Amino acid sequence: MEHKFPPRKFSAKILDCTIRDGGIVSASRFEPEFVRALYSALSNAGVDIIEMGYKNSPNILSPAQYGPWRFCPEELLKDTLRDCGNGIKISLMVDIGKCNISEIPPKDKSVVDIMRCAFYCWQIRDALETAGALSELGYETALCMMASSTISDEEITRALDKFSDSSADIVYLMDSYGALSPSEMLRLLRKYRKAMASCGKKTGVHFHNNLQLAFANCISAAMEGVDYIDSTLDGFGKGAGNCPTEMLVWFLRGREYVRPLLEAAQNYMEPMRARFKWGNSLPLLLTALANVNPREASNCNGNNCAADFFDRLDSGKVL
Amino acid sequence: MEHKFPPRKFSAKILDCTIRDGGIVSASRFEPEFVRALYSALSNAGVDIIEMGYKNSPNILSPAQYGPWRFCPEELLKDTLRDCGNGIKISLMVDIGKCNISEIPPKDKSVVDIMRCAFYCWQIRDALETAGALSELGYETALCMMASSTISDEEITRALDKFSDSSADIVYLMDSYGALSPSEMLRLLRKYRKAMASCGKKTGVHFHNNLQLAFANCISAAMEGVDYIDSTLDGFGKGAGNCPTEMLVWFLRGREYVRPLLEAAQNYMEPMRARFKWGNSLPLLLTALANVNPREASNCNGNNCAADFFDRLDSGKVL
Repeated sequence: MEHKFPPRKFSAKILDCTIRDGGIVSASRFEPEFVRALYSALSNAGVDIIEMGYKNSPNILSPAQYGPWRFCPEELLKDTLRDCGNGIKISLMVDIGKCNISEIPPKDKSVVDIMRCAFYCWQIRDALETAGALSELGYETALCMMASSTISDEEITRALDKFSDSSADIVYLMDSYGALSPSEMLRLLRKYRKAMASCGKKTGVHFHNNLQLAFANCISAAMEGVDYIDSTLDGFGKGAGNCPTEMLVWFLRGREYVRPLLEAAQNYMEPMRARFKWGNSLPLLLTALANVNPREASNCNGNNCAADFFDRLDSGKVL
Repeated sequence: MEHKFPPRKFSAKILDCTIRDGGIVSASRFEPEFVRALYSALSNAGVDIIEMGYKNSPNILSPAQYGPWRFCPEELLKDTLRDCGNGIKISLMVDIGKCNISEIPPKDKSVVDIMRCAFYCWQIRDALETAGALSELGYETALCMMASSTISDEEITRALDKFSDSSADIVYLMDSYGALSPSEMLRLLRKYRKAMASCGKKTGVHFHNNLQLAFANCISAAMEGVDYIDSTLDGFGKGAGNCPTEMLVWFLRGREYVRPLLEAAQNYMEPMRARFKWGNSLPLLLTALANVNPREASNCNGNNCAADFFDRLDSGKVL
């Protein structure tokens, strides 16, 4: 019997950020062979964009501490993608406070298409300045304001006003804490989309899976008409992980595209599970339910995990 | 900052089936201490119903092969619940084809409140007969037609007509294969609810987590106004597992009720993970995407899992 997913009537583009978001888990160390295999699978699966890492400065973060995909020098990207075809757009993420704009080549010297600026609410001014500079260099740019579940409605309204006046092409709703319920997600997304529609900008979403809602929230966002959706192969990512790219491809593109991704997941991600842990856990559920930074989960590993966490929450000891 | 889940405006009752559904994993073997601790946690969390096991016949299934919660003799229930208070309704599940109605005491001799009949589409006649007999014994009764994602719309319409004429109080939408997307789930649930509203019956839902959608589907069903929702502690259950009771309680009842459940999950379910495996996996994702019985996942464990599965699916070797 044929599967009853809805017909493909959604325009959302998929951005796979396995290397970038998963790089938080692996300190941005990945074999070039894996990156090439991922690129090839994504390409065969009809994924629109691959995010190949961070464009952080090796003069701010230590190259001894992080692998090459934290810095993504142009030669690395070109060497890796040689003979890989040309089907997918390339994006990088720029961490506000950890990048140096003078180290970034202009678009016409780069294989990169999209630069995404990640920042917290209090870094808006720097983010807008950096996005402006990246636009001038010729890149498509995106603004990714993290931890949206912790920002008041008034602050979000003010931020969206500033985004409207910026040079950025895309504005992302980022659920960094994995704490957005479907209804709260939709409420925020509608706010973002209304503000961006009025100035001709696109909107994207990035979810985490602490509440087991990453895929469900992606589906809702797609149905709402969002332009870009983030995902990672096998949900690879920090803590509870992300929406799995293979699920999103199935939903948005159809079964005929999903096989290369499942094979890549089998070949590369299953062995990765022996080295790294990701996915749901009780501590990561607790942090999302409390709407606090998932890093709090690391303080929550004992035998009395749940009780301790609630005690700390009640006594204000959790941020 | 306070969490932004929607206010409690949903009437859905929660039925925790950890012992019953998890019994498929543990061959219905659980320590009475665990069952009592679960009962107590559910009671403190405001859960409405606990399903304590199957009411199958020891003359049909072997008591050597299954633990006591597969048969739930009345003395076991009474002994276990002694001094446990009286806050929660008790349900049992009757497997059509594995029960003997003459072995079931009348309601006034039993602590059980609700009897739920589980059956496949082709067993409807037997299910209606059994439900009728259970109603005559004085129980609230429910009809749980399994594997709804594989039943054609015409068959579902015919089944709902028969359910309308039956003695049952509640009719469940069962997603046994974990294969229902949110939109398909809502389409079916509306069909079920429309048919049942016209004859004054209640509706319930039971989801599995193969597509990481169990909780999301529960939220949608609650918002749609469903009367009963199934869940299990820590999502314990066969294969990909169920919607976690603690998530549902948070969503439907609020944070102040969830702590006893998280403590019970910490104390009892975390150790259980050393003995049993449950939760998402690539093979269980494959079966749901293909809308086939999750038991097919057991044929899918090799290094070429995904490729093999697609080959078998394409060649018709998967049922």
